[in-house]
Amino acid sequence: MSIKYPPRKPRSGLGRRSFLFMTMALVAARGAIAQAQGADPLPSWREGKAKQSLLDFVAAVTREGSSEFVPAPERIATFDNDGTLWVEQPMYVQLAFVLDRVKELYPKHPEWKEKQPFKAVLEGDMKTLVKSGEHGLMALLMATHAGMTTAEFEAIVVRWIASARHPRWHRPYTELAYQPMLELLAYLRASGFKTFIVSGGGIEFMRPWTDKVYGVPPEQVVGSSIKTRFEMRGDTPVLVRLPQINFIDDGPGKPVGINEHIGRRPIAAFGNSDGDLQMLQWTAAGSHRHLALLVHHTDAVREYAYDRKSTFGKLNIALDVAEKSGWTVVSMKDDWARIFAFE
Amino acid sequence: MSIKYPPRKPRSGLGRRSFLFMTMALVAARGAIAQAQGADPLPSWREGKAKQSLLDFVAAVTREGSSEFVPAPERIATFDNDGTLWVEQPMYVQLAFVLDRVKELYPKHPEWKEKQPFKAVLEGDMKTLVKSGEHGLMALLMATHAGMTTAEFEAIVVRWIASARHPRWHRPYTELAYQPMLELLAYLRASGFKTFIVSGGGIEFMRPWTDKVYGVPPEQVVGSSIKTRFEMRGDTPVLVRLPQINFIDDGPGKPVGINEHIGRRPIAAFGNSDGDLQMLQWTAAGSHRHLALLVHHTDAVREYAYDRKSTFGKLNIALDVAEKSGWTVVSMKDDWARIFAFE
Repeated sequence: MSIKYPPRKPRSGLGRRSFLFMTMALVAARGAIAQAQGADPLPSWREGKAKQSLLDFVAAVTREGSSEFVPAPERIATFDNDGTLWVEQPMYVQLAFVLDRVKELYPKHPEWKEKQPFKAVLEGDMKTLVKSGEHGLMALLMATHAGMTTAEFEAIVVRWIASARHPRWHRPYTELAYQPMLELLAYLRASGFKTFIVSGGGIEFMRPWTDKVYGVPPEQVVGSSIKTRFEMRGDTPVLVRLPQINFIDDGPGKPVGINEHIGRRPIAAFGNSDGDLQMLQWTAAGSHRHLALLVHHTDAVREYAYDRKSTFGKLNIALDVAEKSGWTVVSMKDDWARIFAFE
Repeated sequence: MSIKYPPRKPRSGLGRRSFLFMTMALVAARGAIAQAQGADPLPSWREGKAKQSLLDFVAAVTREGSSEFVPAPERIATFDNDGTLWVEQPMYVQLAFVLDRVKELYPKHPEWKEKQPFKAVLEGDMKTLVKSGEHGLMALLMATHAGMTTAEFEAIVVRWIASARHPRWHRPYTELAYQPMLELLAYLRASGFKTFIVSGGGIEFMRPWTDKVYGVPPEQVVGSSIKTRFEMRGDTPVLVRLPQINFIDDGPGKPVGINEHIGRRPIAAFGNSDGDLQMLQWTAAGSHRHLALLVHHTDAVREYAYDRKSTFGKLNIALDVAEKSGWTVVSMKDDWARIFAFE
């Protein structure tokens, strides 16, 4: 099953909209029939504890009259992105974007040939690159993410995400979203939830494609950001992206970002790494029935197997806290019948 | 006509929900019938240019097949709060809150008796208070808004907003929302718009009551904020409010806040002061048909008359830009048949 989303900006034309409308009506009708027949809303999830905890949770909070009922507006679900909704190996997708951008911008910056960490990027020397640490990463980030308007940056991301390919599957990154999580997003929304992304990744790097890929509109994306400044260029107002960190939406920053953007505590949160620990703790401390879930990457054959010592998506402390707290831990190998839609 | 909103947190109990559901169904049915009969969606607006510009705009962007049609997800409308949705004289409501809080906290801070600007507040000496300027205001803000958890601050606001009364009408501030603007909010939402508040006021000061008063949920409120920090207190995670400005959502900050929180450009924006100028410019520069509107306070009898030299809600530059740019300017005296619901 592949889920189709309406394009973010239909090009106009009645024909296309009518088609879209009919498709949506059809999908809705099929969904209603499926539900009436008791069809499985999570077909890519294998029967087991993880799947059952999802079904039980949704049943409980949506059951009118039950003591665990949660009114629809308070059904907030937050999802980490990298490693929770799509692949984060062999490196975060946004880092692949950074490396490509450095190579693309190099003709305008011949001095990078002798300047670290740019030199390492140009030479494909990942070891030196990783050694350059946070300071080096920040230099790369600012060189590739700042100095243009928000509209210009959006156009750069749109172009890149359409053309870039994952080194293992040779497919666009947007096809490397996890099918079971796409089903979960759709299932929660069909159950009256509002789904948000809460990611350490750049908010402006995600927004151009999250609606198409996850059905999550720009205003429901929370992420890290750099500062922007309003400027009039003649009669035209622009927002200029500045080489200055505004907010890091990771670890203890996630509850802060959730509070700032959403202003309500989630009743369900989904992550896969230590960077999601505080978001899950914040969610689990709410007064409503809640669900805290970790995706554990255990499938070296179909995807990757990593946890306690991984450079990207390290899952160490949060795994212990999850066990101690009785949170749901998903084993990709055992709990997911299918990982990608193209399988 | 008074608009009823479902309470934010129904206390549970099937009886209450059933009643709520029936009421909502009734309201929806009545709305559908009214629309079918061509009833006026803006009964508190007098016929005239301002009202017509609202009706024309909504008709144009919602007409399927027209070249000005805007898909529903892109129908973003942003509203300033103070002076646009509710009264901002004789002072911003949040400033009244600050003054009350200083008096309430004084027993724990006997040193304030001799310390400005606290001394001025305790003595009701507004002249000295205003003279203390931004520096003085910041000291008052931090003393009353920081040093507690987000949950504690919410409880303080909820208690205050229920008990405080406006000095002129002797009514809760929440009854001093402008009836024509409540109708406009409801009309836009009924036309597929998503309505946001974008205010210079504190985001956490507004969120506890915007849903009840305006039908705008917490996640659709953008405002100024102080920094918060995630902390574990034993097993309980909290967000602590720090005495440090995070973001000023005013003037050139409004497009920045809109971009950060919403990630789309509004097609309609509503303000009343120079602090809204850049939000209106940003909206008016979009590629879709748009609406930029200023509320002009011209009614000294029923409300207040002020503009170019007002301490609160100064409207000077923006009034000239509006005229030059052909934006809609609402004269409260002429365009609004009724100002408050209780009239």
